[in-house]
Order: sequence, then structure tokens, then C-alpha cells
Amino acid sequence: MPIYRLTVAYDGTDFVGWQRQPNGPSIQQALEDALAKLFEQPISCRGAGRTDAGVHALAQVVSFSAERELPERALVFGTNSHLPDGIAVVAAAVMPDRGESGEPFDARFSASGKLYRYQVWNAKVRSPFHMRTHWHVGVPLELSAMQEAAQVLVGRHDFRAFRAANCERLTTVRTVRRMQVLTFPDEPILHIEVEATAFLRNMVRILAGTIVAVGKRQLTPADVAAALSSGDRTAAGPTAPPHGLFLVRVDYGPRTGP
Amino acid sequence: MPIYRLTVAYDGTDFVGWQRQPNGPSIQQALEDALAKLFEQPISCRGAGRTDAGVHALAQVVSFSAERELPERALVFGTNSHLPDGIAVVAAAVMPDRGESGEPFDARFSASGKLYRYQVWNAKVRSPFHMRTHWHVGVPLELSAMQEAAQVLVGRHDFRAFRAANCERLTTVRTVRRMQVLTFPDEPILHIEVEATAFLRNMVRILAGTIVAVGKRQLTPADVAAALSSGDRTAAGPTAPPHGLFLVRVDYGPRTGP
Repeated sequence: MPIYRLTVAYDGTDFVGWQRQPNGPSIQQALEDALAKLFEQPISCRGAGRTDAGVHALAQVVSFSAERELPERALVFGTNSHLPDGIAVVAAAVMPDRGESGEPFDARFSASGKLYRYQVWNAKVRSPFHMRTHWHVGVPLELSAMQEAAQVLVGRHDFRAFRAANCERLTTVRTVRRMQVLTFPDEPILHIEVEATAFLRNMVRILAGTIVAVGKRQLTPADVAAALSSGDRTAAGPTAPPHGLFLVRVDYGPRTGP
Repeated sequence: MPIYRLTVAYDGTDFVGWQRQPNGPSIQQALEDALAKLFEQPISCRGAGRTDAGVHALAQVVSFSAERELPERALVFGTNSHLPDGIAVVAAAVMPDRGESGEPFDARFSASGKLYRYQVWNAKVRSPFHMRTHWHVGVPLELSAMQEAAQVLVGRHDFRAFRAANCERLTTVRTVRRMQVLTFPDEPILHIEVEATAFLRNMVRILAGTIVAVGKRQLTPADVAAALSSGDRTAAGPTAPPHGLFLVRVDYGPRTGP
């Protein structure tokens, strides 16, 4: 059976998150329903990142297998014709039976890293066109302190202080390859980009909430370093709301870097 | 009584249009309700442009009078605290009793011109993040023909062929000061900007639908010139959908230019 890889964009506002759940419409369910119509068989698909309710994706990666072989173009347009407006397949590929590792392609387990972006609308007055995709922070933020705090977090650390209380991972050491605070010349927008091999539950939202707390001078970069070494969740900043978060890219291939 | 001028941005997706109507929530109603709470009196306000259902504004201008005098900052933040997320007051001013014309300021009747923008997402695959604010046109558009057709429409003309069937205006001569098709280096987006002293009902949407029909090679620039001189609505292009349209700017002051 061919294994397919889809790249999927979605506005998470009206969904309970990536994962299929009894309490409302999920991205996974919408996608599996659309693929079932296209392939005329039940389809079970796996996403690279299990984004929370309200979280968006520019390029979630999804894998599944199906009996029929469909050309890539038919897969993109056929699936989109069965999906709601808030979800779109932007690319599709048929994967080789076995990847370089010798294993079949699996969107989640083959991933070697991910890039998330947290978007902030930093102006006194809210913008109706950014409410679904940006956290509105109405006070001025001190950019240089935010950038300094971001550098504290780069590298291989125990991120125990930066995970949700209900995170069940046994190991909490992760490698943040890159963390940057980006600004734009014409708009009051900040992007906090975080690239890592893997993440803990709510990790990016807590990192973003912490960096914004530094921008508001509620925490110093030294406080962030202390939170990291203490492993104490209460020493880090608050969890930023989900609607500013985007899964931007998923990397595959050998795990390289620090 | 002081006369106030507000600049208001809104995402028109969830509204029946600017004007108060019995069949659903309007921008005007939301704004009047919010202002009534702030001023503790009934408020009746006038908008410069009566945008249709689904049409957006970056800077609609609104006028009203009230008994109390409130500082501008209180007006912006106080009104926003009573408005839904999709609407935001971005600026406020107390106007002089009489303007240069000798008349009190009226957002609609004092206006000397308006700039509208029509936004097109021109890519094969739709984008979940542009569905509310862009018309998705999935076929390639011929830009140079569109720009040529836009130039045909600039100037003082009888725009009878470019108005809705139910438009009740007796005079149909209008002056289009500027019409341009703008592109962007990194995104498959087109903006059709139209600046005029005044507009007929659905005029910008029919102009945009006509320009896009030229881009699709369904009409030529010569066909557009013929539609203009015939005054025949069926000779122009289709009415573009409302959700790509933005009221971008309202001009006040002496009516200048051609």
C-alpha cells in the first residue's frame, strides 16, 4: 500500500486541536473524513505535531497509507474539495516504501525537528484582522531584554519548568536549536521563533509567555536562567494563549546539530 | 453638544454590513450600543461608507454627537471595551463646531473621496488564513491586461454599466481618480485599489470582477471600454464577492482633482 505525505495548513480557531476528540471538530477528523471520501475507504492519519485547540499550522505534516494510488495533484485538489475552508492541503507526495532509516515514513516518528512561531500584536489598540492569529499585548515590550532571554534558552537543557502540569513525558531534556524574536518595519508585530528537536506539552506557549513577561519587565533574563536551572514551573512566565501559535515547519532527515 | 469623529476597523465576516438591519448584527448597531453604554445616552451614528455584508474596513469614518465631552483616549479604549473582537475604534477626535464649509462635520456628507481595495488570493490552492479577506482565484491572471483595463476606467465616466440592478442613484457619472493593480514579491496576492469622489452601489465589486475577468482573458481591455460606453451592465464582468473588499481611507477637505 502506498504511503502518502501531506502538507496541511489550518486556522485552528474553530477546532478542538489536531487530535480526534469526542468534544468537537478536530483537524484530524476533518482530514480523515475527507480522505475517506477521496479513497473510498477508512483512513487513519498521523500528524507530526499534536497542536492544541486554537493553535494553527502553516505546514503540518501528515502521513497515512491507502489502498489506491492517486497522483499528487488529485490528492491536493480532491482532498481540499471535501475539507472545510479553515483547512487546506498545500502539497502531497507518495513516499518510498522505506526511508533512509529503513523504516516506512511516519510524520511523527520520522521527524527530526520542528519550527514553531508565536505571533504577538503589540499595539495599544487591538486589530480585528489579527485577533485569530496573534496575542494582543497592549503595553510596550523591551525588545533587547526579550532577545537576551531567548539566548538563555537556546541549547540542551532540562525544560521541566517550561511544561504543562499534565505533561507526562519522563525525560524533560530537550535541545532548542534556535530561538529568536523578530520584528517588522511597518507593523506592530513580533514573532518568537523556536526550533527544537522535540517539545514538551505547552513548551512553546510557556517559552513565549516567559519571553513576553521579560518584555514587560516582569522577569529579567537572569530570572529566566534561574527558572531553567530550578526546574520550577512557577518561576517561569505564564502560558501564552493558544491562538498566537503556529506550527511552521517540520524537518525530516538525520538529527543534526547540537 | 460635541461632535465626535471615530476611525473604525472591522472584519465584516460576521456582520450583515455597516447599516442597522432587522436581520442580524450590523457594525452600526454594535457601535451605537457600545457608545450608548459609554455615554449613558442613546447614540445615533453615521458612517462614511455603507459597506455591504461581509465587506471590511481598515478606516471607516463615523460621526455622532453626544451630551458629554470625553477625552479621545477614553473614547478609544472605552468604546473598544464594549465592542466585539471583530470591531475596533482605532482613533477618535472631537471636531470643531463648524468645518471649513461652515457645516458641522458629518462622516458621510463631508467626505470628498474614498479609497477602496479589493484583495485577491491568486494561487491554485486556497489559504485558510486568507479566506475571510481575499477572493480566491485559482487560475493564473494576466497582470498587464488587468493594468491596461484599469487605466480605461480612470477618469470621469458614466458608470451605469458598473452598478447593481437595485442601485437607485439618478446620476451615474462618477470620477475614478486612480485605479491600480498592485502585486507583492513574496505572496500570491493582488490588490485592486480604486479611489473616487463617490461610488455607485456595488461599483467597486463590479470593477474588481471586471478586472479579474480581464486577467482570466474572458474580457479584453477593449471590451471594458465598450461596456463603459454602452452603459450595459451585462457587458461588464461579474460582481466580485464581498469578502475581498476593504474600505481603506476616507478623504475630507476640498474636492480636488479631475
